[in-house]
Amino acid sequence: MRFRIQSAMVAAVVAFAFGSSRADEGMWLLNKPPAKALKEKYGFEPTPEWLEHLQKSCCRMGASASIVSPEGLVMTNHHVGHDSLEKLSTPEKDLLKTGFYARTRGEEVKCPDLDAVVLWSIEDVTDKVTGAVKPGMSPADAGAARRKAIAEIEAASDKATGLKSEVVTLYHGARYHLYCYKRFTDIRLVMAPEEQAAFFGGDNDNFEYPRYNLDCCFFRIYENDKPLKTEHYLKWSKNGAADNELTFVVGHPGRTQRLYTVDHLKFLRDVEMPSILRKLWRREVELAGFSSRSDENARIANGDRRSVENSRKAFTGVLAGLNDPAVMKQKMDEEKKLRAWVDADPERKKEYGDAWDKLADAHANYRTFYERQMALDGRRSVLRSDLMKIARNLVRMADEKQKPNSERLHEYTDSELAELEQDLYSPAPIYDALEIERLGDGLSFFAEQFGGDDPLTTTALAGKSPKARAEELVRGSKLKDVAFRKKLAAGGTAAIASCDDPMIRFAAAIDPESRRLRKRFEDEVESVERAAYAKIAKAKFASEGEDTYPDATFTLRLSYGPVRGYIEDGKQVKPFTEFAGMYERAKERHGEYPFNMPERWAAKKDKLKMDVPFNFICTPDIIGGNSGSPVVNKQGEVVGLVFDGNMQGLVWDIAYTDDQARCVAVDSRGLIEALKNVYDAGPLVNELTGGKS
Amino acid sequence: MRFRIQSAMVAAVVAFAFGSSRADEGMWLLNKPPAKALKEKYGFEPTPEWLEHLQKSCCRMGASASIVSPEGLVMTNHHVGHDSLEKLSTPEKDLLKTGFYARTRGEEVKCPDLDAVVLWSIEDVTDKVTGAVKPGMSPADAGAARRKAIAEIEAASDKATGLKSEVVTLYHGARYHLYCYKRFTDIRLVMAPEEQAAFFGGDNDNFEYPRYNLDCCFFRIYENDKPLKTEHYLKWSKNGAADNELTFVVGHPGRTQRLYTVDHLKFLRDVEMPSILRKLWRREVELAGFSSRSDENARIANGDRRSVENSRKAFTGVLAGLNDPAVMKQKMDEEKKLRAWVDADPERKKEYGDAWDKLADAHANYRTFYERQMALDGRRSVLRSDLMKIARNLVRMADEKQKPNSERLHEYTDSELAELEQDLYSPAPIYDALEIERLGDGLSFFAEQFGGDDPLTTTALAGKSPKARAEELVRGSKLKDVAFRKKLAAGGTAAIASCDDPMIRFAAAIDPESRRLRKRFEDEVESVERAAYAKIAKAKFASEGEDTYPDATFTLRLSYGPVRGYIEDGKQVKPFTEFAGMYERAKERHGEYPFNMPERWAAKKDKLKMDVPFNFICTPDIIGGNSGSPVVNKQGEVVGLVFDGNMQGLVWDIAYTDDQARCVAVDSRGLIEALKNVYDAGPLVNELTGGKS
Repeated sequence: MRFRIQSAMVAAVVAFAFGSSRADEGMWLLNKPPAKALKEKYGFEPTPEWLEHLQKSCCRMGASASIVSPEGLVMTNHHVGHDSLEKLSTPEKDLLKTGFYARTRGEEVKCPDLDAVVLWSIEDVTDKVTGAVKPGMSPADAGAARRKAIAEIEAASDKATGLKSEVVTLYHGARYHLYCYKRFTDIRLVMAPEEQAAFFGGDNDNFEYPRYNLDCCFFRIYENDKPLKTEHYLKWSKNGAADNELTFVVGHPGRTQRLYTVDHLKFLRDVEMPSILRKLWRREVELAGFSSRSDENARIANGDRRSVENSRKAFTGVLAGLNDPAVMKQKMDEEKKLRAWVDADPERKKEYGDAWDKLADAHANYRTFYERQMALDGRRSVLRSDLMKIARNLVRMADEKQKPNSERLHEYTDSELAELEQDLYSPAPIYDALEIERLGDGLSFFAEQFGGDDPLTTTALAGKSPKARAEELVRGSKLKDVAFRKKLAAGGTAAIASCDDPMIRFAAAIDPESRRLRKRFEDEVESVERAAYAKIAKAKFASEGEDTYPDATFTLRLSYGPVRGYIEDGKQVKPFTEFAGMYERAKERHGEYPFNMPERWAAKKDKLKMDVPFNFICTPDIIGGNSGSPVVNKQGEVVGLVFDGNMQGLVWDIAYTDDQARCVAVDSRGLIEALKNVYDAGPLVNELTGGKS
Repeated sequence: MRFRIQSAMVAAVVAFAFGSSRADEGMWLLNKPPAKALKEKYGFEPTPEWLEHLQKSCCRMGASASIVSPEGLVMTNHHVGHDSLEKLSTPEKDLLKTGFYARTRGEEVKCPDLDAVVLWSIEDVTDKVTGAVKPGMSPADAGAARRKAIAEIEAASDKATGLKSEVVTLYHGARYHLYCYKRFTDIRLVMAPEEQAAFFGGDNDNFEYPRYNLDCCFFRIYENDKPLKTEHYLKWSKNGAADNELTFVVGHPGRTQRLYTVDHLKFLRDVEMPSILRKLWRREVELAGFSSRSDENARIANGDRRSVENSRKAFTGVLAGLNDPAVMKQKMDEEKKLRAWVDADPERKKEYGDAWDKLADAHANYRTFYERQMALDGRRSVLRSDLMKIARNLVRMADEKQKPNSERLHEYTDSELAELEQDLYSPAPIYDALEIERLGDGLSFFAEQFGGDDPLTTTALAGKSPKARAEELVRGSKLKDVAFRKKLAAGGTAAIASCDDPMIRFAAAIDPESRRLRKRFEDEVESVERAAYAKIAKAKFASEGEDTYPDATFTLRLSYGPVRGYIEDGKQVKPFTEFAGMYERAKERHGEYPFNMPERWAAKKDKLKMDVPFNFICTPDIIGGNSGSPVVNKQGEVVGLVFDGNMQGLVWDIAYTDDQARCVAVDSRGLIEALKNVYDAGPLVNELTGGKS
């Protein structure tokens, strides 16, 4: 998963418009669109066909993307394609430096482990999931019952539909919807600009506006070795969007915390965000040092660096929001209001009243093992070596496959295995130097975080220094060989038990502690959250109505709002930038990295119309994961490509405001202008515009 | 204080030579030189005159320095002079970019707050200090009694000698020596190269070898507005040092932990180093972001960045050493041996036996409040804004001056006040933007570290966000005005109490908690350390003899050892580099920062003899604080200027080894060659060489 837009530098004073009818708030479910607000405010009524077409024209591919031609052409961000671009590069040919364009189908290159899923159907299965919980069950047992029900629903749906089936937890547990996806695994690279054009201004200008980024990347979905034929694709707008025009964003926002209780937000503020940032600061410095040692180091660590820098900036913003008393006060007032409504009636109090305290107790408990669990488990584990991830998946998969499907850890259930195996058997290059750096740093982190004499540290280090241990594990492992991985997987638990690969033994040695902590989280925290948030959401529905949206879950959502500038430090920030601005910015920053003009852009300056709109801003409600989402007009035509939010939008993780916060997109007109006149990509332009550009 | 060389990347396998007679280990006291080893190994007998001359030719000036002409010319490192160079710069004239050379005395510029002290006499006052402790006193009372005795000794000596008097705690409490210094406060800048020549290769090559750095800076001591006349100065060697020639380093190593117990080292490994590094990683990323915003931001934050990058690399090395099982095992073996010797005799056991457990208990207790104390107090406080430091000193000074001298916090005793006031009334520029960045970051750290609802956080933030609070404090304060500071100081506690300057009120609001934690440290940790280490040192003296050196204390020490290369990854690293190597390194790294040749050096290439030695390595035992130390030969003539240690030398904080670890110096010949032919500094060269170059 890649999240460019993750989360909030709040301007010193932000007038929050929580729940205000003026604000175009919401990441709406496609089966529960903001029909009332759109009609009342914009006189627009989305038809079921309009919604279905958008739904089936969008896909999830690491982050968000859309199908933009009848022949399976897919548009997303360069930074979403970054991982594939890096995997397709070599020391001799670095696609991030050179860019790429396949002028013919034959030149399109298959990505090692990229897949795309298109949402095909949605069904409410809340009753089936919550019905599995029997009165009197402990939270842990209730959690297990829910997970079992979910696995069974998914497996049955997989079998019945042949589609990848996924039960999505909405409102943190008040609703469960079954999403069925068409999944494509043959994805080929069509076009990418050089990174310096896609990410002009670098970390410096990330989450800033005005911007001048051609943050696009084109892929093509293949089926049976042929380009996908599809009626569901987005057409290109001839004129782009105008100032104040209503726009829509359809994409996959990753995660928000808007429904969190105040206590949960404090956990986020005092525990989770500081912990994540501490690791990011550390990684950023370590990776900068590693990269500075050689050109090749810089090349292979580029993706890690981009990801870390981006997350650091995003989470800094979220934390700033959480530390802003105005934001927290608003959250407290909202909670106070709801709790007063609950407490005003003995029945309501009995039904919902204990939810807040249960959550508070669960998070107080979670504070005692959060750091340890995070170090070992989940996507923020410090053990982020590719070989280690492979080893852990092999070790766990062998164990899990022995269990009935509905009792497995979710990522090893039958409906998830295809995705897992695509990753596991990816032929993407793995670099010893970077692996050693990642693992050595992670092992050192264990020692720092838990102490040199902690059993976890001593088990992990096995009497070596972190660096020596990392070298031993990486250089001694045969897991770079995909055939070896497959053979091990085929051999099941017996093969794992008798395998002397050091990385396998390492993964096996720390797995019990990792599993123990995950189980504690699921039993003592997640289960409580599901039940308590279900109560809170029900109380909210009962008191405020159900015309609302759930927190983001990395599933398809619809947002809306006009193209609109804003006022900052007393000055008007215009909604559109033009190509001319990019050349001016380069000049103003002495052409020094990250403000150097890419060679091609310097050379083709005369060919470009300087006043064509390049990037623009609008108010639709987005978050990290929305990167690559199309911006469409009322006709469902592409007018832009979301690639960022501004600094003031980082607070959107916890609260929406549209005073200054904005979604940032590449303008469809600038995109075509650059493809034509900088990249000479006529065939691609014709495919996008139906030959009408 | 500036510590360039602070602390150890241990090579995967290092054969430690603890206590081995082969190793030229030790930072020896000038009144207790390594006479036996020098005579036995090198046939050299330092005379009292030789020692006295070196002692009185060296000075402490932030780090280390030496007097190198009869007219008070002082030589140190560029990075030691960095603070003054920054303070003398303006947006229009950045001395770090341009360099500086005063061709005549009249052009020499006074530094705003630089002072230099020369060690004039040493007296053992152990009995007076330890005699103040009466049997049966609690550790806290014993600590107070020692501190009181020290303040009285210093005050009496100040009065009797007119010299700045300082009681130095040696062997962590086994010995107390009274050092009397001549102090000079009129220090003027004579010559500095541009930073790019002084720090060619930047953070990249810092703590690496081979190196090509002209890391020098020249000042002049003035007395009564005239250059200091002195008979004690170091002469310049005509020929420099040869490979394998014995050399000496005389300087001020800051702090080592070689005598620490294993338990104390674990405190360092598990608590102190990780804590320091977490703050450094954070600062490094924050400062990079701040600097990237504008050229002026980059200029004013340069010193902070250099300092943070340097410390981060140094402490990473120390932590790697602590996490190296070979290092820790050696320490355990040594301790086991000593404790076995103690336990072997009931008398010894009674006298020394409880020291280790007392220390272990004290450090277990210290773990519970270390983070909080460090956030508020001491030189690593996160509140590193200049205005905040000024405010705190004003608040505390008012309180402390009301107490008898011997009961004050040490930095407010009469013998320290002159130095404190020089800092306090410094006219050096203070920049709002950087102050807000520093303070905002520190306040955010409070919230992350202690939680948003912690009383310390809420007191510090006063209902604002960290950034808004920092802006309010900085922009609202009048403390940039030196006259205002003096007026406040003159008004004592009444003036402070009635002062509505927001920074003063802020400092006053958090001072009680800061003082409370400092007192806990002094009573519960430091006092125990003093008593316990005194016992351990006595046991060591009794079992191993007293021919040894104490841990570094930022006081004058003598180290020795030959010029010598080493073998790394099977290759010979030669002891000397030449100018040619610098030009080659720039080429190999595409001339990109930090490997760009300074303009002047590119232009003057033809004037330079390419084969003149530029930097060299030798084995004398140094640590951070030694930056700027002269390297001298047996005749006491300058053959080099210490500016760094290599990566393998970072472990010297905790243990000396000379397999690969080296002290890195500018060669006296390269220095003269560059001054003459790149900087056209004939008069300076003549002064250094007595006209004999």
